[in-house]
Amino acid sequence: MIEGFRFAGVAAGIKKKGGLDLGMIVADRPVSAAAVFTRNKMAAAPVGLSRGLLAAAKGRAVGVVVNSGNANAGTGAAGARDAKAMVARARRGAPRGGAMLVASTGVIGAPLPMAEVGAGIDAALAALAPDQAEAFADAILTTDRARKVATATAAGARLWGCTKGAGMIAPNMATTLSFVVTDAAVAPAALARALRAGCAESFNAITVDGDTSTNDMILVLASGAAGPARGFDAALAGLLDDLARQLIRGGEGVHHVVTVRVEGARTAAEARRAARRIANSPLVKTAIAGADPNWGRILCAAGNAEVALDPARVALRIGDVAVVRRGTPVAGAWEDPARAVMRRGEYDLVLDLGLGKGAGRYLACDLSHEYVSINADYRS
Amino acid sequence: MIEGFRFAGVAAGIKKKGGLDLGMIVADRPVSAAAVFTRNKMAAAPVGLSRGLLAAAKGRAVGVVVNSGNANAGTGAAGARDAKAMVARARRGAPRGGAMLVASTGVIGAPLPMAEVGAGIDAALAALAPDQAEAFADAILTTDRARKVATATAAGARLWGCTKGAGMIAPNMATTLSFVVTDAAVAPAALARALRAGCAESFNAITVDGDTSTNDMILVLASGAAGPARGFDAALAGLLDDLARQLIRGGEGVHHVVTVRVEGARTAAEARRAARRIANSPLVKTAIAGADPNWGRILCAAGNAEVALDPARVALRIGDVAVVRRGTPVAGAWEDPARAVMRRGEYDLVLDLGLGKGAGRYLACDLSHEYVSINADYRS
Repeated sequence: MIEGFRFAGVAAGIKKKGGLDLGMIVADRPVSAAAVFTRNKMAAAPVGLSRGLLAAAKGRAVGVVVNSGNANAGTGAAGARDAKAMVARARRGAPRGGAMLVASTGVIGAPLPMAEVGAGIDAALAALAPDQAEAFADAILTTDRARKVATATAAGARLWGCTKGAGMIAPNMATTLSFVVTDAAVAPAALARALRAGCAESFNAITVDGDTSTNDMILVLASGAAGPARGFDAALAGLLDDLARQLIRGGEGVHHVVTVRVEGARTAAEARRAARRIANSPLVKTAIAGADPNWGRILCAAGNAEVALDPARVALRIGDVAVVRRGTPVAGAWEDPARAVMRRGEYDLVLDLGLGKGAGRYLACDLSHEYVSINADYRS
Repeated sequence: MIEGFRFAGVAAGIKKKGGLDLGMIVADRPVSAAAVFTRNKMAAAPVGLSRGLLAAAKGRAVGVVVNSGNANAGTGAAGARDAKAMVARARRGAPRGGAMLVASTGVIGAPLPMAEVGAGIDAALAALAPDQAEAFADAILTTDRARKVATATAAGARLWGCTKGAGMIAPNMATTLSFVVTDAAVAPAALARALRAGCAESFNAITVDGDTSTNDMILVLASGAAGPARGFDAALAGLLDDLARQLIRGGEGVHHVVTVRVEGARTAAEARRAARRIANSPLVKTAIAGADPNWGRILCAAGNAEVALDPARVALRIGDVAVVRRGTPVAGAWEDPARAVMRRGEYDLVLDLGLGKGAGRYLACDLSHEYVSINADYRS
């Protein structure tokens, strides 16, 4: 329970297989809100609508309505009308003032079943209660294997958040939606800054297949009931990191979560770019799947990252096993120990470019047979 | 036979499994030469050496020595010495003046077996003959399933070329090496321009996994024996396209070669960028593997390409089947016909952005179980 919010999750009949598929968070009064949205230019109807509503309300919101089972993407003008209708219906049970936001996730290109959605919103409004956060967290899931929630504290304030997305590799472009509520008092501008900073090291630093979905959205609502909270930014960043790791760890076909750390880059931006390139390389990801300490692929990916790099200075560690120094493999028996590290569920790859003090990281995972099966055989 | 050149391919004992692994092309006298090299900053020793030698010789060369079985990459200062030693040994049997170039492909991080390489160069020099081009083409192969050669003509001139690389998806970063000889008379600067233009639509427009290897190199040598040849640039471009298609078609784990065409972009550069993004998307590539007309993934990838895009104007065809118009799926039974197209070995995906006249293309292929098996289980 986070003071100032009520939650609901109901079965509206949007998902063909049944189950909870419509969730709401409603604030007791207008609260500070901040969000990040997908930059994908094919963004779904609810993304554009929520972005506009939040900006028009100058960072004040009264809640969000979310459906799973249908992404309302690739739905043209009808999709835009349907998203607006969801907001209008949800507003009926919310306090005045501030934006009611909307998010959708699920199959694309199909019209929203508005009869079911409308009745679902009414049912959710009737079910709203302070202790229904977990029902909300369940209602936003699609192919996830389990609920993904996290909590944090900062001074006297509390944070609760949930996320969905099967490691960003799920079928249908793997939307990730995340919602965080807190009773900390944070002004909208400060909340937006904290969210951006927290995402940079979490949701913006994870990759499974490099694509951003049409529906991605992260929303934070702050009721202020607990007053100002020292350390709020760090607490939010920690909670987002927790959620992002759950996302990637719970991904379909994911057996290894690897933190790619690049150090010694000329700048932090270059370190991050190199880490991202390595994390996105299919050759690296298949080597991770095979627990193969194929250092050449890792260095090759870094060499393609368009960052300053001198082969004679490059060093690589897999976990705590030194594999490459000055661009060539180290002498001695590094191979079996490195392989043992790579059989673990989570480990680090540390590339030192030996040029400066720039450091950055990216979370990566394996590219497995299961990934291909899920994504080649899934029917849109 | 291309007048002005002799060829050789011998078994030097570099490949553990045996077979031809050292090739040479030697010109009768210094000829025009142009090359493109990998831009990977972890470039192997022979890449940096050849680039420098060709520049110093102002685009004049007397030949090239190539070994397979060992990439001489990740080999530090010793690798640089070994590459120079290969050039020095190869020069013994070549005319004076112009650069002797060198290329390597195979396992990385292992020192070249210089005793075998040296004896192999001597044997190749002894075997040089005008009719040994196919032995040369065989000697540069690594995991390729078959020799890859192509020919073309321009006015009275002839072109012959060969390439290697298992669709750029082979283990060990999938080096592609290509060599073209012609008896056309072309000055070095014009040859360099023709090569760059030809590559833009062929080798620089194919992708299997988005990484450029440490050893990639394409070399063209023009003896001039046939005199100036009208239409040479187009003939070279056609030959490079032929080789590039063989490369991707012959790739391990490749069952579908898909030409991604983007039309109606604001500029040709944006069209190309969108085509590339689509061609590199693992979600698109797994849909290709599963013959699944998952238009949402294709549009989503385009939406992430950082090009101008208006969802309301986007149209998509799979082969000649209209799938999307104005950003939403077309009415009617497009799905089974689209699926039938996607079961073919080669077909087109045509995305029309509806914004301008920019057009561009990229060759893509499927991401299959075989790809994962090859790259996850391969031992470096």
